[in-house]
Amino acid sequence: MATLNDCRERDAQDPLRALREHFMLPEGLVYLDGNSLGVLPRAAPARMAQAVGEEWGRGLIGSWNEAGWYALPTRVGDKIGRLVGAAPGEVVTTDSTSVNLFKVLSAALSMVAQDAPGRRVIVSERDNFPTDLYIAEALCRERGFTLRLVDEPDALADALQPDVALLMLTQVNYRTGALHDMAQLSAQAHACGALAVWDLAHSAGAVPVDLHAGGADFAVGCGYKYLNGGPGAPAFVWVHPRHVDRFWQPLAGWWSHAAPFEFTPGYQPAAGIARYLCGTPPVLSLTALECGVDTVLAAEPLGGMAALREKSLALTDLFIALVESRCAGHGLSLVTPREHARRGSQVCLARAEGAYAIVQALIARGVVGDFRAGDAARGREDILRFGFTPLYLGFEDVWQAVEQLVQVLETGEWRRPDFNRKQAVT
Amino acid sequence: MATLNDCRERDAQDPLRALREHFMLPEGLVYLDGNSLGVLPRAAPARMAQAVGEEWGRGLIGSWNEAGWYALPTRVGDKIGRLVGAAPGEVVTTDSTSVNLFKVLSAALSMVAQDAPGRRVIVSERDNFPTDLYIAEALCRERGFTLRLVDEPDALADALQPDVALLMLTQVNYRTGALHDMAQLSAQAHACGALAVWDLAHSAGAVPVDLHAGGADFAVGCGYKYLNGGPGAPAFVWVHPRHVDRFWQPLAGWWSHAAPFEFTPGYQPAAGIARYLCGTPPVLSLTALECGVDTVLAAEPLGGMAALREKSLALTDLFIALVESRCAGHGLSLVTPREHARRGSQVCLARAEGAYAIVQALIARGVVGDFRAGDAARGREDILRFGFTPLYLGFEDVWQAVEQLVQVLETGEWRRPDFNRKQAVT
Repeated sequence: MATLNDCRERDAQDPLRALREHFMLPEGLVYLDGNSLGVLPRAAPARMAQAVGEEWGRGLIGSWNEAGWYALPTRVGDKIGRLVGAAPGEVVTTDSTSVNLFKVLSAALSMVAQDAPGRRVIVSERDNFPTDLYIAEALCRERGFTLRLVDEPDALADALQPDVALLMLTQVNYRTGALHDMAQLSAQAHACGALAVWDLAHSAGAVPVDLHAGGADFAVGCGYKYLNGGPGAPAFVWVHPRHVDRFWQPLAGWWSHAAPFEFTPGYQPAAGIARYLCGTPPVLSLTALECGVDTVLAAEPLGGMAALREKSLALTDLFIALVESRCAGHGLSLVTPREHARRGSQVCLARAEGAYAIVQALIARGVVGDFRAGDAARGREDILRFGFTPLYLGFEDVWQAVEQLVQVLETGEWRRPDFNRKQAVT
Repeated sequence: MATLNDCRERDAQDPLRALREHFMLPEGLVYLDGNSLGVLPRAAPARMAQAVGEEWGRGLIGSWNEAGWYALPTRVGDKIGRLVGAAPGEVVTTDSTSVNLFKVLSAALSMVAQDAPGRRVIVSERDNFPTDLYIAEALCRERGFTLRLVDEPDALADALQPDVALLMLTQVNYRTGALHDMAQLSAQAHACGALAVWDLAHSAGAVPVDLHAGGADFAVGCGYKYLNGGPGAPAFVWVHPRHVDRFWQPLAGWWSHAAPFEFTPGYQPAAGIARYLCGTPPVLSLTALECGVDTVLAAEPLGGMAALREKSLALTDLFIALVESRCAGHGLSLVTPREHARRGSQVCLARAEGAYAIVQALIARGVVGDFRAGDAARGREDILRFGFTPLYLGFEDVWQAVEQLVQVLETGEWRRPDFNRKQAVT
C-alpha cells in the first residue's frame, strides 16, 4: 500500500504539478469539491479588477467594442470548444445550464415534431441531475411529450423504443461519478431514430469529450465546476452544425437576432450558434469564466485533457485503494465504478448512517468534500462525494484526505451534535 | 437663458449633489449614457475584490451559506422592490430581462388560457424594445397567440379589444424616452379583461414606479442601466402576489424548486417569486448589481425616487431649453415629450442627417451619448440619445454637454470620415 512518502514522490515526478500554480488554493486545505465549485484561478483577481475598474469604470459603454465584451460569449465558447471536441464557432457561453438545456430541448423537440411527429418520448435516468429532469418535465408538459425515466443505466437500451424522440443524459452522474459511453449511447439513440442530448456539467474539463466523435446532437455544460469559472458562472451550449440553422429556440432575445443593433421589430435568428444566445450576457461573470477556462487550456502543452485524464484516474485509483485498505470495517462502500472507462473524476462512498456528519467533520479538519442525500425508497444510501481536479490536486492531497477520514471514523468525532446540523446548502 | 454660472450655482445648492461621490466618474467625462450602462459605483471594486478573493478564493463552496450567496437573488430583489413599489419577497434578481420576460409571458399566457381561452392576442407597440417583441413573437408562435402592434401610444386604447390576453409595454421607451401612464394603461387593460405586463428597463431607478398602485400584473426590469449594476447585470422579475402561485413558468430549473437541495426527480415549484428563479445565478455579477442598487437606495434619506425624479426633470428641462436656444437652426428636433408626466429620464433629438457622426464627435469631446437608427419607412429620423442619471450628473454637466454639441455643429467637425465609420455596437 502507498505511503505518504510514495505520494510525495509521485507529486515530485508529476509533469502536471506546475499547473497547481495557476490557482489560489487556501493554505492547508485539501479541496475535493471542484466538482461543485472550482478553485479561484490565480489570474482572476487582477483580471476582475481590470474588468471592473478599467473596462467598466473608465471604458464604460465603449468597452462593448474596445474591451471585447461583445465577443465574450463566442470567444470563451471557442475556448471551451477545444475541451469538448467542438470546432470554432460551434459553442457560446451564456445563461445557466438549465436555461441552455431549455433552448436545446425546445429546438430538438421542434425538429422531431417536424421530422418524426409520432415520437413523443424523452428518455433519461431517474438519477439524472434534477434540473435536467425538471426542464424536460416542463417542456413535455408544454409540448405534449412524455418523460421515460430508467432506474439503471443498463435499462437505457430497452427504453429506446420507436416512440422515442430524444435521449437526454448527463455524461457523468453528479452523485455517483459514473461515466456514460457517449459514442455508444448516441449510436443507440440514432439507431432507434432518436436524437442525443448531452449535459457535460461533470465532464467538461474533467474527462476527454469529443462531441463530434461521440455522435452528440446537442450539448450543454456548466462553467463553475471543472472549468473553474466562479460561483454561478455562465454555462455553455453546443449544437451540431447540421442542426443549428434548422430551428429557432424560443428564448429568442435580441442577442440571438441576426442584426441585434438594427433594432428591427421582427425576429430573424442569427446564423449558427449565436441564435442560442438570448439577452445581454453577464460580462463580469463571463470574464471570470474565461480565467477559469484558461486554467484548463494551460494543460494543452502538457498533453491537455488526455494527460489530465491520466492523472485524474491515478488520483481516484489511489483514493479508492487507500480508503478500502485504511477504512475497512467502517461501513463505507464504493459507489463509483471501479472500471476506468465508466468513472468520471470523482469518487463517491455510501454509508448507511452519518454521511452528512462525516463530511462536516472532514471539513472541520480541512478536507472539503460534500454530501448528497440517498433515497431510502430506492435502496440508495447517503453519499460522501469527493471530486478530484487534477489541475490543482496532488497525490499527497489524496493521502491527507484519507488520513483525515481515518481519524474522523476512528475517533467517532462525527457523532458530535454540531456536525449533524444541516445548513441551507451543502 | 441659463448661464454656466447659473448651472454651477444650482449644483452648489443641489441637495442630491453628494450622491455623486458614490461613483467613480472618469475625470472630465460628461456621461449621458447611464440609460445604456450605469457608472461604476465607488464601492464596487473593493466589494468585487472581496467576493473574488475572499468569498470565492478562501470560502469556496462554503460561501453559499457563509457569504450569503444563496440569498443574493432575494436580497437584491428586495432592495429593488423598494424602488418599484414591491413588498419584500415579491422580487428576485436572476437571468436576463429577455429570459425573465419569457417566464412571465409564459405564466401569463397559461393563466389566460385557463381563465379566458378565447383571448388570443398580445398588444404592444411596434416601437417597444425589440427583445420584448422577439420573445413575445416566439411565445405567440409556440402557443398560438397573435401579436398586435400599434404605431403610436394613442392607438393602444383601440387595440384593447375583447380578444386581448395581455398588454405588454415598456414603461419608458428606449428610443424616445416617452413615459407611459402605468396606472391608466393597466386600468384600460383590466377593463378590457386583459392582464398588464410591464418592462421597467428604463424606469427602475429612473422614475418613481409603484407596481401595486400602477395595477401591474407582471413586471421585469434591467440591472445595468439606472440601477448601475455593471455590464450585463442580472435582471429582475416581479409577479403580483395574487398570481404568483397560480402557475409554473416553464424555465423550471432547480433553483425554482420547492426543495432544490433535496435533489428529487419530480418538479414542485417553490412558493412565491422564488419559482421565477431557474438555474444557479451568476454570483459575481449579482454582487456587482447589489453595489449598483445600493447607490440608488443611498438617495432614500434625501427623498428617494421622488427627489431623484425632481432633479431628473430639472436636468432634462435644462438640456431641452439650452439645446433649443443654442442649437437653433442646426436641424435638431425634440423627440422626447415636453410634458413632465410623459417624459422619462432621457432626451432624444432627431436629425435628418449625421446623427451617428455627431454622437461620435461628441464622444471625442468627452460627452458620451448614443445613437439609435431611425426607420425611414415609417418617417422616423435617426436619433441622438442622452440619458440623465440624477445620481451622478449635475447642471454644469448639462451645460457642458450642450456647449460641446454647439461646437460640433458650428465647426461641422462631425463630417470628418472617422466619425462616420460604424462599430459593431454603439
